[in-house]
Amino acid sequence: MKRRVVLALGGNALQKNGEATAEAQKNVAIKVGEAIAEFASRFEIIVAHGNGPQVGNILLHEESAATEKAPAMPLETAVAMSQGQIGYWLTQAINNAYAKKGKTAKVATVVSQVVVDRRDKAFKNPTKPIGQFYTEKEAKRLAREKGWTVKEDAGRGWRRVVASPKPIDIVEKKAILGLINEGVIVVAAGGGGIPVYKTKIRKKLKGVDAVIDKDFAAEKLAEIVNADIFVSVTAVPNVYLNYGQPDQTALGVITSQELSRLKKFGFFKAGSMLPKVEATIAFSKYKKGNIGIITDIDNLYDALRGKAGTIVH
Amino acid sequence: MKRRVVLALGGNALQKNGEATAEAQKNVAIKVGEAIAEFASRFEIIVAHGNGPQVGNILLHEESAATEKAPAMPLETAVAMSQGQIGYWLTQAINNAYAKKGKTAKVATVVSQVVVDRRDKAFKNPTKPIGQFYTEKEAKRLAREKGWTVKEDAGRGWRRVVASPKPIDIVEKKAILGLINEGVIVVAAGGGGIPVYKTKIRKKLKGVDAVIDKDFAAEKLAEIVNADIFVSVTAVPNVYLNYGQPDQTALGVITSQELSRLKKFGFFKAGSMLPKVEATIAFSKYKKGNIGIITDIDNLYDALRGKAGTIVH
Repeated sequence: MKRRVVLALGGNALQKNGEATAEAQKNVAIKVGEAIAEFASRFEIIVAHGNGPQVGNILLHEESAATEKAPAMPLETAVAMSQGQIGYWLTQAINNAYAKKGKTAKVATVVSQVVVDRRDKAFKNPTKPIGQFYTEKEAKRLAREKGWTVKEDAGRGWRRVVASPKPIDIVEKKAILGLINEGVIVVAAGGGGIPVYKTKIRKKLKGVDAVIDKDFAAEKLAEIVNADIFVSVTAVPNVYLNYGQPDQTALGVITSQELSRLKKFGFFKAGSMLPKVEATIAFSKYKKGNIGIITDIDNLYDALRGKAGTIVH
Repeated sequence: MKRRVVLALGGNALQKNGEATAEAQKNVAIKVGEAIAEFASRFEIIVAHGNGPQVGNILLHEESAATEKAPAMPLETAVAMSQGQIGYWLTQAINNAYAKKGKTAKVATVVSQVVVDRRDKAFKNPTKPIGQFYTEKEAKRLAREKGWTVKEDAGRGWRRVVASPKPIDIVEKKAILGLINEGVIVVAAGGGGIPVYKTKIRKKLKGVDAVIDKDFAAEKLAEIVNADIFVSVTAVPNVYLNYGQPDQTALGVITSQELSRLKKFGFFKAGSMLPKVEATIAFSKYKKGNIGIITDIDNLYDALRGKAGTIVH
């Protein structure tokens, strides 16, 4: 039996030094594809990814060039667009990494809707900045016109803020499981998934402008597909205590209890290592024998063999 | 054994009266979803769709709001974005049409790369206008800077033109077949597919800025999945001779030989009914017993029962 691995890739990771052309991002994706092809035959692999900078640019273009005939797409649809975009780059990179070895990859991207609770308290206090910067006047006009919540962003201007609700379920889970069973590497839950909620009556799905944390969505995906290993692929080889300080200490093999304790001490920063640590703890607690890993792309294969990264059990 | 049906939906069909907001297009998608849910239990269904107006708007936004930090995505990536966008709308519409009946749909969109031949003669003579209009001066500057081919478009201004090569293969075919085998309704080959070619050495996939005709791509998909029925879903219930003339005649059940003969007489217009007629003839000739249908969404179920539409055998 091959072990089942969910990889959660950062959306920032595709934009090396902030280079945001399709060509530059494809070049980073090539490295990801080659890393995956190195061990793909020994595991069942599911790839989730972030979309922060990509969906930001899509919204920027949609909103600043909107006309009556060509109106801007809303955030939830922009997430779907970013899934097509990044999923295509990753899929093609995996195809080509296999081709380089003279093999044919079975890999596909599934456009993924992730269910959230409309009563999630995050909707009462939107905190996630999204899209372009506006002047105060513009921002307040847009808030009136479109029902947006807007906030000043650290003196840099005004931005729209949206809720970041917790993921509950993945609509396409049966399709994703079906593909895994057919031996396909699946790219899914991109950008945390297209946020949808279920209406009270009839349980219809409805898109909602929100941003689901990609680490939490990937962890939910890992639970749903009953993965054995969950890897947060980030910019650094390990989780560190006192990161960037003279007494910086890399964490290696660690229990989830120990990591929880360090988390309570406030060692990990929100918006940075904290969601990865939280998702990894949640996964390692979910089922006996589960392993959570936090590492970078270069150490990925070694980490899967227990030789690198922060390994949480 | 359920019969396997590939539906090819027009991209224009989602923009009723040119209404291009996400909300308006979702409302049209709802009708498509409900039509599909009506007969989905009796067939295996694969949905392909166009993306003309959608990818046009994406390119318009990408190109007219591009900055150095947020550069425009190229056409091939924009096709991937439109697959995410339209695939999401269609998938959710099918989910909700099932929910309305108290059922749960198994449906998923697969981001699809479609292989073309780099030596396809279409690349020597690009004819397909794409994206926004420019002045002659702008157009010629872009042609120099980006290597585009530009042409004057019927006195309305200058536009980029790209090749429309023939589809050869679908990269994700194994995943698509795997999903069909798992009982999933699949949305695939959106917008004719993301155009890619295989490099001579190593057979690596490379995206290319082109537009694959969605009828031809959908027909290729129908061959690949070994479909029994291929339906071009268009704006009118039938194929007509002398459409819009006093002697307009709807075609009902017809052999592919007979339809080919009418085609040779020049009855069908390029860019309108001609590609649908050609795709339908190609499909009905491909395998003994295959049935090609051309009809609109309202007559879809009746056409599948042989009671409406133009039925080609």
